[in-house]
Amino acid sequence: MVEAVETMDGWYSLHDFRTVDWTSWKLATEEERKEAIESLQQLLAAWEKVEEENNGSHVLYNIVGQKADLMFMFLRPTTNELSEIETELNKSKMGEFLIPAHSYVSVVELSKYRPYKVEKPEELPEIAKRLKPILPKWEHVCFYPMDRRRQGEENWYTLEKDVRGQLLYEHSKTGRKYAGKVSQIITGSIGLDDWEWGVTLFAHDPLQFKKIVYEMRFDEVSSKYGEFGEFFVGNHLPNDAIAAYLNI
Amino acid sequence: MVEAVETMDGWYSLHDFRTVDWTSWKLATEEERKEAIESLQQLLAAWEKVEEENNGSHVLYNIVGQKADLMFMFLRPTTNELSEIETELNKSKMGEFLIPAHSYVSVVELSKYRPYKVEKPEELPEIAKRLKPILPKWEHVCFYPMDRRRQGEENWYTLEKDVRGQLLYEHSKTGRKYAGKVSQIITGSIGLDDWEWGVTLFAHDPLQFKKIVYEMRFDEVSSKYGEFGEFFVGNHLPNDAIAAYLNI
Amino acid sequence: MVEAVETMDGWYSLHDFRTVDWTSWKLATEEERKEAIESLQQLLAAWEKVEEENNGSHVLYNIVGQKADLMFMFLRPTTNELSEIETELNKSKMGEFLIPAHSYVSVVELSKYRPYKVEKPEELPEIAKRLKPILPKWEHVCFYPMDRRRQGEENWYTLEKDVRGQLLYEHSKTGRKYAGKVSQIITGSIGLDDWEWGVTLFAHDPLQFKKIVYEMRFDEVSSKYGEFGEFFVGNHLPNDAIAAYLNI
Amino acid sequence: MVEAVETMDGWYSLHDFRTVDWTSWKLATEEERKEAIESLQQLLAAWEKVEEENNGSHVLYNIVGQKADLMFMFLRPTTNELSEIETELNKSKMGEFLIPAHSYVSVVELSKYRPYKVEKPEELPEIAKRLKPILPKWEHVCFYPMDRRRQGEENWYTLEKDVRGQLLYEHSKTGRKYAGKVSQIITGSIGLDDWEWGVTLFAHDPLQFKKIVYEMRFDEVSSKYGEFGEFFVGNHLPNDAIAAYLNI
Amino acid sequence: MVEAVETMDGWYSLHDFRTVDWTSWKLATEEERKEAIESLQQLLAAWEKVEEENNGSHVLYNIVGQKADLMFMFLRPTTNELSEIETELNKSKMGEFLIPAHSYVSVVELSKYRPYKVEKPEELPEIAKRLKPILPKWEHVCFYPMDRRRQGEENWYTLEKDVRGQLLYEHSKTGRKYAGKVSQIITGSIGLDDWEWGVTLFAHDPLQFKKIVYEMRFDEVSSKYGEFGEFFVGNHLPNDAIAAYLNI
Repeated sequence: MVEAVETMDGWYSLHDFRTVDWTSWKLATEEERKEAIESLQQLLAAWEKVEEENNGSHVLYNIVGQKADLMFMFLRPTTNELSEIETELNKSKMGEFLIPAHSYVSVVELSKYRPYKVEKPEELPEIAKRLKPILPKWEHVCFYPMDRRRQGEENWYTLEKDVRGQLLYEHSKTGRKYAGKVSQIITGSIGLDDWEWGVTLFAHDPLQFKKIVYEMRFDEVSSKYGEFGEFFVGNHLPNDAIAAYLNI
Repeated sequence: MVEAVETMDGWYSLHDFRTVDWTSWKLATEEERKEAIESLQQLLAAWEKVEEENNGSHVLYNIVGQKADLMFMFLRPTTNELSEIETELNKSKMGEFLIPAHSYVSVVELSKYRPYKVEKPEELPEIAKRLKPILPKWEHVCFYPMDRRRQGEENWYTLEKDVRGQLLYEHSKTGRKYAGKVSQIITGSIGLDDWEWGVTLFAHDPLQFKKIVYEMRFDEVSSKYGEFGEFFVGNHLPNDAIAAYLNI
Repeated sequence: MVEAVETMDGWYSLHDFRTVDWTSWKLATEEERKEAIESLQQLLAAWEKVEEENNGSHVLYNIVGQKADLMFMFLRPTTNELSEIETELNKSKMGEFLIPAHSYVSVVELSKYRPYKVEKPEELPEIAKRLKPILPKWEHVCFYPMDRRRQGEENWYTLEKDVRGQLLYEHSKTGRKYAGKVSQIITGSIGLDDWEWGVTLFAHDPLQFKKIVYEMRFDEVSSKYGEFGEFFVGNHLPNDAIAAYLNI
Repeated sequence: MVEAVETMDGWYSLHDFRTVDWTSWKLATEEERKEAIESLQQLLAAWEKVEEENNGSHVLYNIVGQKADLMFMFLRPTTNELSEIETELNKSKMGEFLIPAHSYVSVVELSKYRPYKVEKPEELPEIAKRLKPILPKWEHVCFYPMDRRRQGEENWYTLEKDVRGQLLYEHSKTGRKYAGKVSQIITGSIGLDDWEWGVTLFAHDPLQFKKIVYEMRFDEVSSKYGEFGEFFVGNHLPNDAIAAYLNI
Repeated sequence: MVEAVETMDGWYSLHDFRTVDWTSWKLATEEERKEAIESLQQLLAAWEKVEEENNGSHVLYNIVGQKADLMFMFLRPTTNELSEIETELNKSKMGEFLIPAHSYVSVVELSKYRPYKVEKPEELPEIAKRLKPILPKWEHVCFYPMDRRRQGEENWYTLEKDVRGQLLYEHSKTGRKYAGKVSQIITGSIGLDDWEWGVTLFAHDPLQFKKIVYEMRFDEVSSKYGEFGEFFVGNHLPNDAIAAYLNI
């Protein structure tokens, strides 16, 4: 009987990828485009208010390549709030020019493999802050989903808890080398979306995404037990750059 | 010669996922939108009558993320009734604004791995009620399809009946821990749709979906013999919230 | 050197799945819709004449779920006739409202694993009739394609002929339990379409599809050597129900 | 160190699959349709001139089922000529009604597994002719791409050259049984398209496609080392049948 | 503990595949087409200036087959510049006629498996030039992404560094045979896009793509540890041929 390990769970997360419909955007009147940009700015202002009040967080990145043009990432206490944001965006004037490209639903997660000295570690201030994080607005983002492998001899879910904990501990040592260079948010999605976890990395230099993921791939937990999905990489799109980005 | 185990089968099930065509919806006149919402309300009223008369059941959820906007789940005594519902929805005014996104065809199923003291357990009132269930209208839903693995040494269909029964019994003990938190409907779809089973979970708190699916993944029946498809998670959309949801 | 087993082959088969473009259908004038329905009725009348003259056969089913709305299945002596039917349907007024959803090309097939006392068994009247069958118009249909597995130790094509014959014989015994409940047409598609065989089942009660496919999955020939594709299930759509089905 | 075997390579090949946009075709004026058919006839006339001068070859088939309506196969000495043909077709009036459905890029290939008595066998007239073949205009075509397997113990690319040669020799004996019934062109596509080889078969009777591919699947080279992609089957569409095919 | 090997990384790379929307192109006025071609020429002129100043490089190829019509490959010091190029292209008049077909994000990479005599080999002029290369404008291009396998016994990431280095060294010897015939740019994409590496080959004769990829497939590093994605092959499209290519 293999023992599962409890998780600590925080805010729900929605990664929302959209592609600008440039053809429609150009066909729109200047008035319509102005209205659209304003509608997005209003949404962003409302979301910033939520962030200021520590009731959630969000970021906006410009994805490199054709998988999408924009990635919004939203954190909120409930899935209802995430749906409302989506619906607001769909109903907004800007929404008429943003084609849904991809999305991912998960929840900020910390594992309890390492023992805590308190009974409810999720209530420790430093843990609580990591479960309900204000997302960094670093220059670059990388998002990818992942699974733990379940194939013949390579089955994460038949490994004993101690073995899993040790493998994850070794892995975390690789991660620590990137302190200050890469900031990582792990979100769990078993039962919520198609992969088991989502990984969102922030960096000042996008090369660090390649370096950390490459180095980690040699850790046993990844080389034998990691399965990876699509990778999305983007550049930060601050509010005051949106008008220029959409200007034609 | 491996022995199959008979199933008890109840109402047929259709999970019907639709995406709102927001662009068309906005282009429609207010009159048209009103007519569309009324057409959906009429369908819902008719379906509620069916449910009141215990001739079927249905629910409507707002899916989180871009896989779909809405998930209807319908239970009916025949597949003809399911097709008629689909056709009615397609023909309705609302149907003009709902793009088909995904569907799943199955039938409510209970297995007979554990012995019953009566010859026809499906006729026991408590069993009959589970085969023709009124779907809970809990705040959140999770749907995913699954297969039992058939790969080399990990082949569910070459395991002896007793072994399968024991593995399922252990699994059910994990499930029982979530009594009151998660309500589960298993529907069989071998010969009806692309996966072997559909799992529909209802919860008051969506975090319970993650907790139960995660914990169950360590059960041998899942870790070695479970293959999982797409996961859809949604928030309940009661009739009196539809107009607000669609209001622009 | 593993020995192949000859097959007896009859009429070519085309499964043709179409989705009704309900939006265009509603936008069409009543005149156009009338013309479209008449064009379909004319095609059906022509195909029925072919069937009466024993030069082919066809059926029309309403598929449950969103994979398609309609499944036509056509049997004809040549692939040219199948292409002509497709082209006729595409050119017809009704064709303007039927979006191609999926298709499958194969040929009615009987194997020669069990020995026949005559040299040319395909000329025996009872065999000839099974190779050029008039399709049953039973209430429900199930179609799925399948392969025989070729993976490491589980390789159908490296098994000796006798072993394959014995496994198929055991399998046929499971099938015989469903006599009168399920009528089955096997069509071969190696070299013709993406899977190796197509299975078309007809039943009066769609639950029999689930029962037979589930029970058969425990037969070694399926549990170890069967790979299955998409499953389509439908309700019979008789000619005199088409107008009502399309009426809006 | 496993030894590769050199290949002899001839004309480049483009399989170009197109679907007729029947809706647009019907909406076009009779004049436009006439112009479109003439534009195709002009292209065909130009391509025939190339074939008469032995500078290339082409065929046109009507694909059965919904994967495509038409398959053009072009052979030319350079990839630039193939691109030019594609562009010509896209620019032609007919091109406005032909939706790209699929394509495959490869080069006519003969292997050198069996020893030749001359140093440059590709210069032998009978070999040169097979490398720059005039495509048969037989009644039926079958196209599919394939790979040699590289999985654990079943790895074509780790087998010694002699073993590979022997397996291919056995395979060729199966092929020879179909002399006169099936004509085969092998095109190599490693480094050119997604699979390693393309197989184009021509037959007078399409049942021969099923018979040869089925029988060959029991050859060890296929049962253990063959991976197969999509299969396309078509009926020959001679120039003088095009107008009738497109007539509405 | 398996040791990773550091990489040297240069310019970021974007492969941007586009399909010409020939139908819209024909519907456009001659004026619009002229404006579009000029907009593309202006972008190309600006990009050439960047290349002349050694701040990046780019090429434009005409892809053979229907995967795309055009492949742009851009090298730039930052991912922001790559996004800007994409946005410029999307906003340009020509962009209205170019449908995004595929893209790939990576970074020019050299490995450090072989020891260098200096501490920072990336600063050696010959290495620096390879990390920030001016792309060859050879007649033909081939692009494909690849992974190193991680499956059971065949797991690149559990091999010791020396073993990996030796396998790569053997592989490089095969590559060296093609000096002058094939020019290769390796770009790393772990953490940046869906595969681990991108391979871009340039040749004067496209047959060399087939020859080198075929021969290399027998190297152990490929036969046991290589997984390959889609292959794209194209013919060089020099600036002065663009107008003719687009002329209708």
